[in-house]
Amino acid sequence: MSKANLFYAQSGGVTSVINASACGVIETARLNKDKIGKVYAGLNGIVGALNEDLIDTSKETSKTIAALRSTPAGAFGSCRYKLKSYTENKREYARLMEVFQAHNIRYFLYNGGGDSQDTANKIAQHSLEKGFPITCIGVPKTVDNDLPITDNCPGFGSVAKYVAVSIREAGLDVASMCASSTKVFVMEVMGRHAGWIAGAAGLASEEAGDAPHIILFPEIAFNKEMFLKKVKSSVKRFGYCAIVVSEGVQNKDGTFLADAGGVDAFGHVQLGGVAPFVANMIKDELGYKYHWAVSDYLQRSARHIASATDVEQAYAVGRAAVQFALKGKNAVMPTIVRGSGKKYSWKIGEAKLSDIANIEKIMPRRYISRDGFSITEEAREYFFPLIQGEDYPEYKNGIPQYARLKKQLEKKKLKQWAD
Amino acid sequence: MSKANLFYAQSGGVTSVINASACGVIETARLNKDKIGKVYAGLNGIVGALNEDLIDTSKETSKTIAALRSTPAGAFGSCRYKLKSYTENKREYARLMEVFQAHNIRYFLYNGGGDSQDTANKIAQHSLEKGFPITCIGVPKTVDNDLPITDNCPGFGSVAKYVAVSIREAGLDVASMCASSTKVFVMEVMGRHAGWIAGAAGLASEEAGDAPHIILFPEIAFNKEMFLKKVKSSVKRFGYCAIVVSEGVQNKDGTFLADAGGVDAFGHVQLGGVAPFVANMIKDELGYKYHWAVSDYLQRSARHIASATDVEQAYAVGRAAVQFALKGKNAVMPTIVRGSGKKYSWKIGEAKLSDIANIEKIMPRRYISRDGFSITEEAREYFFPLIQGEDYPEYKNGIPQYARLKKQLEKKKLKQWAD
Repeated sequence: MSKANLFYAQSGGVTSVINASACGVIETARLNKDKIGKVYAGLNGIVGALNEDLIDTSKETSKTIAALRSTPAGAFGSCRYKLKSYTENKREYARLMEVFQAHNIRYFLYNGGGDSQDTANKIAQHSLEKGFPITCIGVPKTVDNDLPITDNCPGFGSVAKYVAVSIREAGLDVASMCASSTKVFVMEVMGRHAGWIAGAAGLASEEAGDAPHIILFPEIAFNKEMFLKKVKSSVKRFGYCAIVVSEGVQNKDGTFLADAGGVDAFGHVQLGGVAPFVANMIKDELGYKYHWAVSDYLQRSARHIASATDVEQAYAVGRAAVQFALKGKNAVMPTIVRGSGKKYSWKIGEAKLSDIANIEKIMPRRYISRDGFSITEEAREYFFPLIQGEDYPEYKNGIPQYARLKKQLEKKKLKQWAD
Repeated sequence: MSKANLFYAQSGGVTSVINASACGVIETARLNKDKIGKVYAGLNGIVGALNEDLIDTSKETSKTIAALRSTPAGAFGSCRYKLKSYTENKREYARLMEVFQAHNIRYFLYNGGGDSQDTANKIAQHSLEKGFPITCIGVPKTVDNDLPITDNCPGFGSVAKYVAVSIREAGLDVASMCASSTKVFVMEVMGRHAGWIAGAAGLASEEAGDAPHIILFPEIAFNKEMFLKKVKSSVKRFGYCAIVVSEGVQNKDGTFLADAGGVDAFGHVQLGGVAPFVANMIKDELGYKYHWAVSDYLQRSARHIASATDVEQAYAVGRAAVQFALKGKNAVMPTIVRGSGKKYSWKIGEAKLSDIANIEKIMPRRYISRDGFSITEEAREYFFPLIQGEDYPEYKNGIPQYARLKKQLEKKKLKQWAD
């Protein structure tokens, strides 16, 4: 048999360092040309495998591949597409096997969150049963930091750094102006179910009075009275109040906070996000002038302010995934294991995909202060190492230069896939 | 007579480099101790002079003053407060004279936009008439880039860099996901009256298909039909459409676009900004899945991604203001003069405050493409030099370390000011 090829795909919402993992995968595979043939990347993730849209990464120069390390978003395209279980959709699994077999693909590396690890695990099982065993290795990625077992997820450290830096800077802005102008600033951050990102914003506060003064977590039911009291006391004490609100913050009854709000001219339930909703509530009840920001995709694509630790770990899990595959491991995912010493250290560990799949790690209650509006010392100890170091991209003409791929597709051998 | 003191105040909306100008002022004054006594900074701008809240900057270490160069927002506090004309409010002018005289202040440096230059000019005139002449020098500052005569305004280059970098990064994010998810991304930027900031986002587009695909300028009346056509064609050609919209974009009748929109649960005319408004319009008319971002204060406080050129110029105008004062100039403002050579160069020029005051420089029509949705080559030539170079702040624990001032107030000598 000729050397086996490797298929790599990016899955789900992208991050500012998922391409660093791709870089780790491809560079490590290139160092092992005696064992691994071509590295194919799925055009738009797993959909690329179904459609037999296989990007031949061997056509990319080593310089381009190296540049992936500092390029945000999914350079090969990602997708929101979850394979159903085998019993529900045998056709998809059969098609994947067909494509993998046609292109002699024996390694499948899937770079994504919990859903993707579930998919990778199923393919590993299924391929064994079908007698064309595929080595399936997960590569962790998610800004939400919600995968179990691993100490943290590549992608999270950089968004954490972005939100901490942003609220520090905007906080200084509001502090400058609050005597005669804006007194309240609300910044909305990602995190539908878990408050990891919102919590990381708390790192910006190093001394009493520093922004943020209030964090609203999805884990803590919103209490309007206590919240407004806290806003008022912050304005009285510090002259202003800087608030970080997680998009997932909920009422006691489990409904999203912003959903309780208005309709726009078109009758939409929700025109703005939760930031303008909260800002308006404050204006209405307390009368303070406000500003608000929703950074949305900016936060998860902000490679210009990535955490060096995050970039390094993202690369390392990509490299480890290839090494695991070459060692004959299967249905596993490299994890980040935190050292127990006082000084932060980490190494690569290993978890079974079956233990990762579909389990969401929410933020422990002990990371959130008793009043529910800030983070504890224990949370700070957890978060701080993850945002350490800066890893600036190269600039040309004042703009970061990010990798531009050829994305040359391998010649198709099969019939077109009918979805 | 003892050495005269200098009063410096920050005015209006702050920027990520206004403190670099403060640094230039204070460091240059300290180099001229034979001529200038103390440098006082107004606590919260000119209001600090009225209240006799004079921050004694001599109490700050040279290290702290140096750190101002890389600290965003207004370190001494700024304000939105415009002095009325002398005939309208003699009391305020009399009070300023009283405070300046009591503290032997003979130099007044006012760091702000058009309004502030007007104020500085009036004080210069008035003090002459009153027989206690104050040397009044303007220091230009505004993210809006709307001052006349000067080639550009310190503060603008950094917000320009921020928006260009941000839309490049978010554009890559959308490009990764558009095959199966979000197809339209809308980023709202500042600029109530002039499209300079929105225009600068156009620098992110270096090759056909790069984000942003559409820019909406305040200078161009919004044409819904043409806009939607352009969105559709961008999605068809490139798979997605990244849009930058200026907060000041207007309908043909001169009303702000977002004002035409909905009411929220509280009956407010405008819950969200123009970004969610535009995003909803697209969803409604074309059905595309969207995301939107409003960076608000984040854009003007983003010192972490400041333009090195901007920082240098901000410092230089602060230094030049002191040098002008020492040369006996009065009622003038240092400007940035662009060299005529092919390679960008600049030097400090000089303008009369009376020529600066209350004149708004909007973006020339020739900087905007014929269809009104992008910038021209001439605009790119103007913008590019202003975002050149990175000037990163120092980091500790993964967070930028910004100056923390003592802000020690000079002992008061006068009665309390009753507004």
